Amino acid sequence: MSHTPKTRLKRAHNRGAYDRPTIDAILDAGMICHVGFVYDGYPVVTPTIYWREGDHVYWHGSSASRMLRAAEGADVCLTVTHLDGLVLARSAFHHSANYRSVMLFGKATKVEDDAIHTAHLKTFVDGIYPGRWDTLRPMNAQELKATTTLSMPINEVSAKIRATGPVDDEADMDVAVWAGVVPIGQRAGVAEPDATCQAAGLAVPDVAARLGFGG
Amino acid sequence: MSHTPKTRLKRAHNRGAYDRPTIDAILDAGMICHVGFVYDGYPVVTPTIYWREGDHVYWHGSSASRMLRAAEGADVCLTVTHLDGLVLARSAFHHSANYRSVMLFGKATKVEDDAIHTAHLKTFVDGIYPGRWDTLRPMNAQELKATTTLSMPINEVSAKIRATGPVDDEADMDVAVWAGVVPIGQRAGVAEPDATCQAAGLAVPDVAARLGFGG
Repeated sequence: MSHTPKTRLKRAHNRGAYDRPTIDAILDAGMICHVGFVYDGYPVVTPTIYWREGDHVYWHGSSASRMLRAAEGADVCLTVTHLDGLVLARSAFHHSANYRSVMLFGKATKVEDDAIHTAHLKTFVDGIYPGRWDTLRPMNAQELKATTTLSMPINEVSAKIRATGPVDDEADMDVAVWAGVVPIGQRAGVAEPDATCQAAGLAVPDVAARLGFGG
Repeated sequence: MSHTPKTRLKRAHNRGAYDRPTIDAILDAGMICHVGFVYDGYPVVTPTIYWREGDHVYWHGSSASRMLRAAEGADVCLTVTHLDGLVLARSAFHHSANYRSVMLFGKATKVEDDAIHTAHLKTFVDGIYPGRWDTLRPMNAQELKATTTLSMPINEVSAKIRATGPVDDEADMDVAVWAGVVPIGQRAGVAEPDATCQAAGLAVPDVAARLGFGG
């Protein structure tokens, strides 16, 4: 793990973290990242699903995707953010938010080998839906070709975390306004089978494992 | 609203939307955006809270913030994403996600006038916590100076939406695996007063209005 001018937090040092267990936990708690790259001289930020395997983060999509084509081989900033709470303070100025975020810099590389590519996609699918890959027919050659998967090493990276109540000015502490935290989290709702599936009465898969959702 | 090479969807045209009611609804349903800009030649993507007022989006932070300093006057891509569901199909290839996203391009401008700046911050606070601004002491000059607010017009913009069940190959329709959608949404938990507030027994404010949370 290298500290660079890009990853070193300039302010709010107490919110910074650089250790892999912290970074991996934040990455593993998410599904959507925002990938930034420079396209035709302009910054572009696109949302996409990602997953982590060991020391790399992966994301994928259609091989025709402009984002994937532009990001391949390019400098990328991949950011994952969890909003954990609203922080209500006794002055407007000290209102804040609790969050966990990871910012990862690097160059994106395309996964080329078909067998390795397939193995990554299996890890991705089973990571969200444990055991699901083997219940599905194998991906065919056309589907694999139509899918591009990029990877980036977890090397130039930092995390930023705020996880505490309001920090008010001493002079404001006797103001009679509610102060504290409203927690925010992501939740899965009740699974909705499509018409064909409903007719067949199949069991709902367990999607909770990776996502750590409450019910 | 102008269509440009940046905003026009190259693929999946059926997922694109360019009308302001659709775009505004997606913006108004969120709190966290990801702001991308080019810093020292590299793309940087930082999460931040934002709000919309009419034809502009605003975000703010410490005047010492590297992100705000770098974004001011620069080309920015501001992206908002809501993950709405996981789409489980009858083949790995057709698994997908339901989502709503907005991608906004433009140049960020700093809000300079103190009175206008204060009015924007009031709109922001009251947008999340209806009526709260007037229950708080006024921001002082130091606090206002320590806060930088940037704005960007909603002009070069596009939305992308997927909101449907799995779209499977005809040949896979009799495979006996669960297929459908697992809805995902953001929820507020039970508000946690800080120690001083708890002792005072103050009423919890209503934060639901802007966020449209379920309980």
